[in-house]
Amino acid sequence: MSKVFPVTLTQQGAWLLDQTVLPGKVAYQTIKTPEAMADAIRTMVVRGAPAIGIAGAFGLVLSARLAVAENLSVESIVIKLREDAELLNATRPTAVNLSWALREMLAVVDELTRNSSPDISVILDQLTEKAEAILAEDIAANQTMGKLGAALMPKGAGILTHCNAGALATGGYGTALGVIRAAFEQDSTIHVYADETRPRLQGARLTTWELAEDGIPVTLVTDGMSGSLMKAGKVQAVITGADRIAANGDAANKIGTYNLALVAKAHNVPFYVAAPRSTLDLSTASGDEIPIEFREEEEVTTVNGERICAEGIGVYNPGFDVTPAELITGIITERGIVNGPEYQVGLGKLYN
Amino acid sequence: MSKVFPVTLTQQGAWLLDQTVLPGKVAYQTIKTPEAMADAIRTMVVRGAPAIGIAGAFGLVLSARLAVAENLSVESIVIKLREDAELLNATRPTAVNLSWALREMLAVVDELTRNSSPDISVILDQLTEKAEAILAEDIAANQTMGKLGAALMPKGAGILTHCNAGALATGGYGTALGVIRAAFEQDSTIHVYADETRPRLQGARLTTWELAEDGIPVTLVTDGMSGSLMKAGKVQAVITGADRIAANGDAANKIGTYNLALVAKAHNVPFYVAAPRSTLDLSTASGDEIPIEFREEEEVTTVNGERICAEGIGVYNPGFDVTPAELITGIITERGIVNGPEYQVGLGKLYN
Repeated sequence: MSKVFPVTLTQQGAWLLDQTVLPGKVAYQTIKTPEAMADAIRTMVVRGAPAIGIAGAFGLVLSARLAVAENLSVESIVIKLREDAELLNATRPTAVNLSWALREMLAVVDELTRNSSPDISVILDQLTEKAEAILAEDIAANQTMGKLGAALMPKGAGILTHCNAGALATGGYGTALGVIRAAFEQDSTIHVYADETRPRLQGARLTTWELAEDGIPVTLVTDGMSGSLMKAGKVQAVITGADRIAANGDAANKIGTYNLALVAKAHNVPFYVAAPRSTLDLSTASGDEIPIEFREEEEVTTVNGERICAEGIGVYNPGFDVTPAELITGIITERGIVNGPEYQVGLGKLYN
Repeated sequence: MSKVFPVTLTQQGAWLLDQTVLPGKVAYQTIKTPEAMADAIRTMVVRGAPAIGIAGAFGLVLSARLAVAENLSVESIVIKLREDAELLNATRPTAVNLSWALREMLAVVDELTRNSSPDISVILDQLTEKAEAILAEDIAANQTMGKLGAALMPKGAGILTHCNAGALATGGYGTALGVIRAAFEQDSTIHVYADETRPRLQGARLTTWELAEDGIPVTLVTDGMSGSLMKAGKVQAVITGADRIAANGDAANKIGTYNLALVAKAHNVPFYVAAPRSTLDLSTASGDEIPIEFREEEEVTTVNGERICAEGIGVYNPGFDVTPAELITGIITERGIVNGPEYQVGLGKLYN
């Protein structure tokens, strides 16, 4: 089990482990309103597809708490919850877990209010229960994926990962790093290589910290070193998370993942994606339909607030890229592993 | 013509444009001893394969100046020059231009002292002339490569480059950026994409600055974005420099180049290498024999002196990787373009 929990619901509000100041500082923010939660998601105080899904669900619990405190009518609460869901959903377009979690939450309200007008405290209780269930199920899914995925890792493997798909990106165990955690429990001779993952450096800032906290050996590399590492025979498997997996198995993930998958292919190194149900978007046929978030130029032009390039230049900063299904060896889910390159049927069977 | 000259010989010493503080500061260091030159090369005040070759040659001029000032015997001067050549040569193992230039300089001394004992001022004069010739020939070679390479760039092309193979990396025009300069003179609708090139960020710090100074439009990307860029159809050619090209066409260049070549191959984007004679090492059969320099961990673990990762982790930091000949569409030299994938005969014809 990881000791890191990025999103927790308390009586005072939602606690977020501030991922913008790690690893230098371990600090928590207490979020009390859905607006503050939207800001926290947008500025990546909380990030990682499953974690922002949970954070979004908690955002609606905060919305309901405020409504109860103001003693709003059931009708007004429903309107407010829908507005806040839209606000939260608009923060980050690529990861589908956020819209999935918000839909799950609104479905609870729909169910409660369809044929009756419940007490508003009942709405709050049920939303709280649902949000806690989303968190608990995410951790359980991660642990199941960990067990399933660990069996795919060769003895003593060098395992390369990109960005942070760890406890910090989820309810508290990790998708890709969940597999690594489970593999390490069985075989302490594995070794992790972490892509630093420019521009936001989640690999350097978050993955090395999270693994070091758990005593799992990790070596940091820049994003351009994967070919050199594989040529040197140091990598036996690549594993990443995903922000959205289309019905055909194309997977959007942090920018740089597609390059890594191409490099792995060239070296015949298996490339795995670990992701729970909430990341799967069967309504999106292929990766071409996945909306890619473009983020502000400063993420590329500055590091720690200091400019690293000339003035007056252009910047291209997509937050994500799409790895086509044919580059993915297998998708590890909590219901089983689907092997590529044909994912449509396998994913459909698990989740339809 | 570029307005940037990284290495200049003056009466006061060798002037180096300090590349460790660009683009924030444009400052020069005056180097007066071969020891100081070795330090400047090691710490990358001057960097880029052709530029460190020129800097090495200037280092031996400084050595000869000191010997003349001390009125050493011819015999002592020859010993001192050989020692200083070894000192300079040991600074950076991968780029072959440095050892090439030092050999060229020592050959002048050998020639002068083989059958006679010349005045020591003659040795200094001849070494100075040779070093200035190495500089002048490098600029001329760059300009020729520029013309030849520009003809390969499609009208309105998006051209992606890695690291800095520009005026800053050479005598003053550039290998890859020389081609881009020449292409831009003929077609102002081309657009350059610059990989930031972690860990030292030469693309961000140097390439964007150098191109912006010349008014050539440039967009900065992180090293993981090349696949996304190519998928979006924004790149019609990739061009890089090289630090050493083996007889079979395998090319060592800044870490991340190999990844970029794999990504270009997957998108059928041509991948060119521009390099002068001094970069070619016909005595090295293939890339497997090229020594790769590993550099200090701090290049990866810190940016602007601030730590970006957890404590107590491993770091892998090769300064270079090798792009195999089969991924290189063509090698642009000052004597002509050699097309791949079979380079052995073509390179041999040009230079044997």
